[in-house]
Amino acid sequence: YGKNTIKFLRLHKEGKKHFVKEVEVCAHLRLTSPQEYLEGNNSLVIPTDTIKNIVLVLAKKNGIPSLEQFAIDICNHFMTTFCQVAYVKAYVQEVPWQRLHEGGVPHIHSFICVPDGIRFCEAEQCRNGPLIVFAGIKDLKLMKTTQSGFEGFYKNEHTTLPERHDRILCGELFCKWSYGECKDFDFDCIWKKIRECILEAFAGPPDCGEYSPSYQKTVNCIQMLVLSRVSQVQVIEVVLNNTFYNVVDMKNLGLTNDKEVLVPVEAPYGSCACTLGRKKFFEA
Amino acid sequence: YGKNTIKFLRLHKEGKKHFVKEVEVCAHLRLTSPQEYLEGNNSLVIPTDTIKNIVLVLAKKNGIPSLEQFAIDICNHFMTTFCQVAYVKAYVQEVPWQRLHEGGVPHIHSFICVPDGIRFCEAEQCRNGPLIVFAGIKDLKLMKTTQSGFEGFYKNEHTTLPERHDRILCGELFCKWSYGECKDFDFDCIWKKIRECILEAFAGPPDCGEYSPSYQKTVNCIQMLVLSRVSQVQVIEVVLNNTFYNVVDMKNLGLTNDKEVLVPVEAPYGSCACTLGRKKFFEA
Amino acid sequence: YGKNTIKFLRLHKEGKKHFVKEVEVCAHLRLTSPQEYLEGNNSLVIPTDTIKNIVLVLAKKNGIPSLEQFAIDICNHFMTTFCQVAYVKAYVQEVPWQRLHEGGVPHIHSFICVPDGIRFCEAEQCRNGPLIVFAGIKDLKLMKTTQSGFEGFYKNEHTTLPERHDRILCGELFCKWSYGECKDFDFDCIWKKIRECILEAFAGPPDCGEYSPSYQKTVNCIQMLVLSRVSQVQVIEVVLNNTFYNVVDMKNLGLTNDKEVLVPVEAPYGSCACTLGRKKFFEA
Amino acid sequence: YGKNTIKFLRLHKEGKKHFVKEVEVCAHLRLTSPQEYLEGNNSLVIPTDTIKNIVLVLAKKNGIPSLEQFAIDICNHFMTTFCQVAYVKAYVQEVPWQRLHEGGVPHIHSFICVPDGIRFCEAEQCRNGPLIVFAGIKDLKLMKTTQSGFEGFYKNEHTTLPERHDRILCGELFCKWSYGECKDFDFDCIWKKIRECILEAFAGPPDCGEYSPSYQKTVNCIQMLVLSRVSQVQVIEVVLNNTFYNVVDMKNLGLTNDKEVLVPVEAPYGSCACTLGRKKFFEA
Repeated sequence: YGKNTIKFLRLHKEGKKHFVKEVEVCAHLRLTSPQEYLEGNNSLVIPTDTIKNIVLVLAKKNGIPSLEQFAIDICNHFMTTFCQVAYVKAYVQEVPWQRLHEGGVPHIHSFICVPDGIRFCEAEQCRNGPLIVFAGIKDLKLMKTTQSGFEGFYKNEHTTLPERHDRILCGELFCKWSYGECKDFDFDCIWKKIRECILEAFAGPPDCGEYSPSYQKTVNCIQMLVLSRVSQVQVIEVVLNNTFYNVVDMKNLGLTNDKEVLVPVEAPYGSCACTLGRKKFFEA
Repeated sequence: YGKNTIKFLRLHKEGKKHFVKEVEVCAHLRLTSPQEYLEGNNSLVIPTDTIKNIVLVLAKKNGIPSLEQFAIDICNHFMTTFCQVAYVKAYVQEVPWQRLHEGGVPHIHSFICVPDGIRFCEAEQCRNGPLIVFAGIKDLKLMKTTQSGFEGFYKNEHTTLPERHDRILCGELFCKWSYGECKDFDFDCIWKKIRECILEAFAGPPDCGEYSPSYQKTVNCIQMLVLSRVSQVQVIEVVLNNTFYNVVDMKNLGLTNDKEVLVPVEAPYGSCACTLGRKKFFEA
Repeated sequence: YGKNTIKFLRLHKEGKKHFVKEVEVCAHLRLTSPQEYLEGNNSLVIPTDTIKNIVLVLAKKNGIPSLEQFAIDICNHFMTTFCQVAYVKAYVQEVPWQRLHEGGVPHIHSFICVPDGIRFCEAEQCRNGPLIVFAGIKDLKLMKTTQSGFEGFYKNEHTTLPERHDRILCGELFCKWSYGECKDFDFDCIWKKIRECILEAFAGPPDCGEYSPSYQKTVNCIQMLVLSRVSQVQVIEVVLNNTFYNVVDMKNLGLTNDKEVLVPVEAPYGSCACTLGRKKFFEA
Repeated sequence: YGKNTIKFLRLHKEGKKHFVKEVEVCAHLRLTSPQEYLEGNNSLVIPTDTIKNIVLVLAKKNGIPSLEQFAIDICNHFMTTFCQVAYVKAYVQEVPWQRLHEGGVPHIHSFICVPDGIRFCEAEQCRNGPLIVFAGIKDLKLMKTTQSGFEGFYKNEHTTLPERHDRILCGELFCKWSYGECKDFDFDCIWKKIRECILEAFAGPPDCGEYSPSYQKTVNCIQMLVLSRVSQVQVIEVVLNNTFYNVVDMKNLGLTNDKEVLVPVEAPYGSCACTLGRKKFFEA
């Protein structure tokens, strides 16, 4: 089992207009024989340096039409070229460069980095097995300042948490889904649609929001909305790393703090995760 | 000399619409006597815990009309309340929460974190001295994929860098400026205007850009544009942490790479900085 | 599925001598019913805050005799107390405080943080299943400046790496092993013994070292030595994150560099991993 | 003003025994003319790439006898070679590789990274000015579990902190000192001596410790001890980034917690700093 990480930029021009993709690629390989480990026999080993060259050559020849297509290209190349490869996985993650706009006008060759959620994908294949494609978003930080509570939970002698019906809901979202059989999907379009579903399910209607009784239920709402709206998604995993905020008690300071000043609670730091498929329910 | 850092959220409602500011505040104090250090006499020491309480109380009472006004409020409070304070500095930095939009409609209580440059400010004062206000932006990552070169530099026997007239210009920008006498400035409006100047000076006109002969010259262009457009700015400092990209040599792999695939060069990692004022030129 | 992280310090005195353990505990729980996710019904949910209280109460009552025993205590508590818990995992990691010595004399209450490899452990249990204990070390950075090469690897048209018989071997080691049925093991003693095995297998005899034909073979040597010396270990996983160093080519600068000056190669960044058990060979 | 950072390894053999220094070097240059900024005239600019080559060539030719000597060599080279350089500063920081020992026997070519405080130095010079050498230690984490309190501090209506006479004293230390005129100092030996002074002043006698009435007083004790024991030190700056620990209140949980279980307080995060010289007192 070996993996390695390569970071590079792919430029491309249409007339005078420039397009840029900066990606980090991580390729994992497993060989059919463990002889490199057991015997120190390197004759089947594909060096990290060679893997880097292959990824760069593929980027040069094919470009990066979409992250997913590039990951598929990498898998296909390794499976086709090297009979000693038993398993390959290609992870591709994007640096979120966006075209600069000046007064509403797009700039032909200038870009700004806007990391409001990072797009990534994965393609993996075992020899003689199907090619499976995953896509996802990570480091997406969201907050609702109301319409969130946590009540009716299990209580015993170790319980000190009060029930709350108007707290802050804030967290960092990780979301990863798998596609079924891939037949010429428009991966860019689907990804944008799913991102919108996530935001909508998290926030609720713009004029009033929607009450969240727990982080867990919000996770489930996101999954249900994506599965209902995007037919290409087979299974969806969501992890929400919570940031809790406490209303500062200002009684000692002679003030009433009506949820105006809050401090983040560093520990305990919580996280909830759930994986949901079309037919079967997996809770991991 | 002591400082401390506090992170908190300030919520505020207008009807059903929520507004949120999450800030990190760092207060530095220097006392008139070093007796706490030399003698272990704590009688003048203002504990970290008290400083935290004061910052939170000010946020509760005054809100955070702008980062700059909040920093000014903190300085004023410490100078007015504690005669043992010889110097105070308040640094305030914002977590870049932006209102969520769904299909163009702003959401009344949901926010997304968009860190495309972080806004900060500083107010500082010595006893009997003027209050000075600084503002700035940091962690702003920008890239130009053309219209940048580096030629005609000094050469000797240690020079191996080739001249280039079409390279990538990419870096992380830090920009900090001071205001003169503050008379009811609209700090939010000025900050946005300066951010636009920075982007414009970096990128040049949207349809063709503007050639940059060096990182240094681009730094100077940013400073000149801000000083010419924004009269309230007295002195402006710009630091550009460069990321270099090398075109991958693919000759050994039998391919011609016409600035299509590039890799970031981790080391040497460079940086250039300059401070420019209205009358006098300081190069630090 | 939910987890949370708590960091705390446990002090303990024997006469005037102080003992300190600072740990980070992460508890994962899975409940028997997904109703919290699907229906927003919180009646079985054990809040993060309650989990934190339980961990702190256990630390207060039992102390932390060893990381492993503390992880076992946490698992036992949750399984015994909450019938709605289907699965529990407790991860415990230590902040590497070491007693200060002055002129060889140990200090009774002062400590220094020495992060030369971080100790951690994990205990996990499914309802009606056995309790399984893992232990490990991570962030252990090691280097051999000779007795390492990489030759005889697979070559094709994408190969540019030269063969090397005297390179630097440097990397960050992660090592995790499982114990069989735990009957009053001295976990501290076993952990120290395994750490010594790792260092010995990595470095070879002090006077001459031992030639490593690849990162992979070194990984295997570590596993074999641990399995042969420490009978309590059932399965051992090793991951070696490699740092490559290149000898700087100084021909252009008129100098011969005989492996005297080397620079780290940031990308590609490689990693090799292997899991080895007593009877069966798993390569993951 | 420009700077850049280079990381490299310097190997050196004595017979079969290997010696390794891995350093990060940051060179700052300021030129006599700002024409590169103002006019985009690069004719005096020394490219980052050339600076890197010079640093590597110096390491190859001179080795790294000590961090300080290497920093001095860099300054001398730039001042002597380039008449357009008005100011040069060389910062050198060490990766803390230590020789591995097996059963007490030192290994001839294997090393382990032990980051219990990072050694660094700085040499700087203005044209026609003296060469000044600084050295220091950073990221040194220390803890005292008793013999520390904080009492008698200033109180007003915003005070909520109780007085404490038996708290934890824990922090990350940064310490930097300057040497006077450098005449063949044994920099390695002096550095080790100062590190011992720091530990001794922080901890007090091994059998009983010494009471610290505040972080500030501990900072001062460190400075006083170094100045009294090490005559080569002219000025010494100490910054102590405090980590506060709170005894967990377990009354609600029916338990008495006699300073046995404590949690770190993430915010407010404090820091105190002081600079002390031989004759004059500076408090920055």
